[in-house]
Amino acid sequence: MLNITKPSLLLDKSICLRNIERMAVRAQSSGLTFRPHCKTHQSHEIANWFRDFGVSSITVSSFDMAEYFAHHGWQDILVAFPFNPLEINRLNELSSMVRISIMADNIETIDFLQKIKNQIGLYIDIDPGYGRTGILSDQFQHIEDLLVSVSKNSKLDFSGFYCHAGHSYKAKNRSEQDGIHQKALSDLTALKKQFEGYGPRVLYGDTPNCSIQTDFHGIDEITPGNFVFYDLTQASLGSCKESDIAVAMVCPVTGKYPATSEVLIHGGAVHFSKETLEINCLQIFGKLVNHNPSGWSPLHTRSYITSISQEHGVVAMAEKAVEQTKIGDLMVFHPVHSCLTANLMRGYSTLEGNVISMR
Amino acid sequence: MLNITKPSLLLDKSICLRNIERMAVRAQSSGLTFRPHCKTHQSHEIANWFRDFGVSSITVSSFDMAEYFAHHGWQDILVAFPFNPLEINRLNELSSMVRISIMADNIETIDFLQKIKNQIGLYIDIDPGYGRTGILSDQFQHIEDLLVSVSKNSKLDFSGFYCHAGHSYKAKNRSEQDGIHQKALSDLTALKKQFEGYGPRVLYGDTPNCSIQTDFHGIDEITPGNFVFYDLTQASLGSCKESDIAVAMVCPVTGKYPATSEVLIHGGAVHFSKETLEINCLQIFGKLVNHNPSGWSPLHTRSYITSISQEHGVVAMAEKAVEQTKIGDLMVFHPVHSCLTANLMRGYSTLEGNVISMR
Repeated sequence: MLNITKPSLLLDKSICLRNIERMAVRAQSSGLTFRPHCKTHQSHEIANWFRDFGVSSITVSSFDMAEYFAHHGWQDILVAFPFNPLEINRLNELSSMVRISIMADNIETIDFLQKIKNQIGLYIDIDPGYGRTGILSDQFQHIEDLLVSVSKNSKLDFSGFYCHAGHSYKAKNRSEQDGIHQKALSDLTALKKQFEGYGPRVLYGDTPNCSIQTDFHGIDEITPGNFVFYDLTQASLGSCKESDIAVAMVCPVTGKYPATSEVLIHGGAVHFSKETLEINCLQIFGKLVNHNPSGWSPLHTRSYITSISQEHGVVAMAEKAVEQTKIGDLMVFHPVHSCLTANLMRGYSTLEGNVISMR
Repeated sequence: MLNITKPSLLLDKSICLRNIERMAVRAQSSGLTFRPHCKTHQSHEIANWFRDFGVSSITVSSFDMAEYFAHHGWQDILVAFPFNPLEINRLNELSSMVRISIMADNIETIDFLQKIKNQIGLYIDIDPGYGRTGILSDQFQHIEDLLVSVSKNSKLDFSGFYCHAGHSYKAKNRSEQDGIHQKALSDLTALKKQFEGYGPRVLYGDTPNCSIQTDFHGIDEITPGNFVFYDLTQASLGSCKESDIAVAMVCPVTGKYPATSEVLIHGGAVHFSKETLEINCLQIFGKLVNHNPSGWSPLHTRSYITSISQEHGVVAMAEKAVEQTKIGDLMVFHPVHSCLTANLMRGYSTLEGNVISMR
């Protein structure tokens, strides 16, 4: 860390590889295809690390990402975002080069897809109760109508159902998590049976469920993303231990305020994002960890970033710890939401001092 | 807007120029030097628009920004962030080319500045009650100690006091705003008198106070930033009218959910940021506006982005409005916090179709 002089995102490659391997093994032991989401790391170098674990298909959430990963050699890409008709030209161009699958949950989009020029995969987006996008899994008639339209378009290969149980992030305890997962499995199993004539694959994929659950009956493929790094939110949900968090922000100390027991860091909303996590009735933006040249480890005393503005971060610490801190010290923090932090930082420094680029 | 196919940040140059002119006139009529903060737009093209209004000195909040603007011809730059000793080499290099001023609020930093190679300006950071950084304005002995240390360093030109009354953002009404401002003015006047032998200039500068207040006695220079675009937060504080907001996000519609009266847009936390504003007990991330090729205007019915994830935004609308919306339509929203939105979008499209680059 000797050369770091400004807010930087560190990556512990060994933890990251362990997270990838663990999820690959989980998928394999349940007979699931592993199609990791790349929105968290957005890096072709990190995506390549998955190849050693047999991964050949990926998930992304925008055409910007799809183009980037196609350009870097990925041949089978699912754009897991309800298709935007304004991007038809990008779809046509991309699908002339690699296998592209998209997602839809309405007849307008299916009708519009008459304009596609090449063979593409289509998933119907199913809402397992999260309430963000998709068709409720018991709306058989609605789904049937879509499938009939899809079947009339010879360039559209119906591939299956895509299901993101994002409400797993709102579960208050393990029992609620299990309930959300089991309800999704049972709904998806019924859906798959209803439309078995179409030979649908079922894709499923949030990081909490994929990390915690062991029963995946009825599921064919998993698409988690955040697990590659994990973060404080995932640790608080029980998806990982804090020692599984593969990224950390290093920030210089530029102020000391013993009167309020606070330290100022250069590290703000343009580095961490404004995502918060509630811990002990406190909204936090990051958690201080111990660090040394070989990595980081949890601190005995808990210190958090408790307030953040564009470039400033305020760290609440014990009075003695403030006294011992020097202006110009480096402090290291786990982020609340690694996807948003990585997106802001646009690159990584490994503990070995290598720079890893992002889209 | 015909060529826009994905989330994009629009800039109405005429509104922006009006905002710049209004603030320049306010400064001039109060006899204040205008040293605008460039952290909001982070664009040399937009910074150049200020030159026509007599601006020749600017404020930034990082050495990254300082280097960028110095490279683009700015000769007098204040880095308004407590100095980070790890950036001494960047300071020495930059100060060999242009006039750089920095900020400090502690003796450790002043001592460290023995290492500077070129003449630089130094401001002492004063806390007017915001509680983020700086020395409380009545800590005369502490300030005197710093000034004595500063005076021993012949390369350090003591320039004055920098004061950011950021608690103006937390004021609940005009009376609280006025109270914060008047308290700051009276404290700064006393401070200036106490240290008049040093000939200090007093810099002051949040957008709410600079937009709303008319009395600036004791102040020499203002450094507001956000006013260049304004946003929903500023409108809610009364710093501007909604018609003064110079930026808007345009986002494609990719889903319609009549059952919940919601529309899905491609436009999420990586576009808007996760900054929220509370309106009628609702946490919102953006507000829908009318749009046409010549710009935007407030909507009769109020519709907000009520939930956001990495790429997804959910817009709550009247049922009828959802029905009338088409997949592939473009919707336009004012952001809650234009600084963070601009930082994420990394560039602007003007209504005339020009692309304006950012750092």
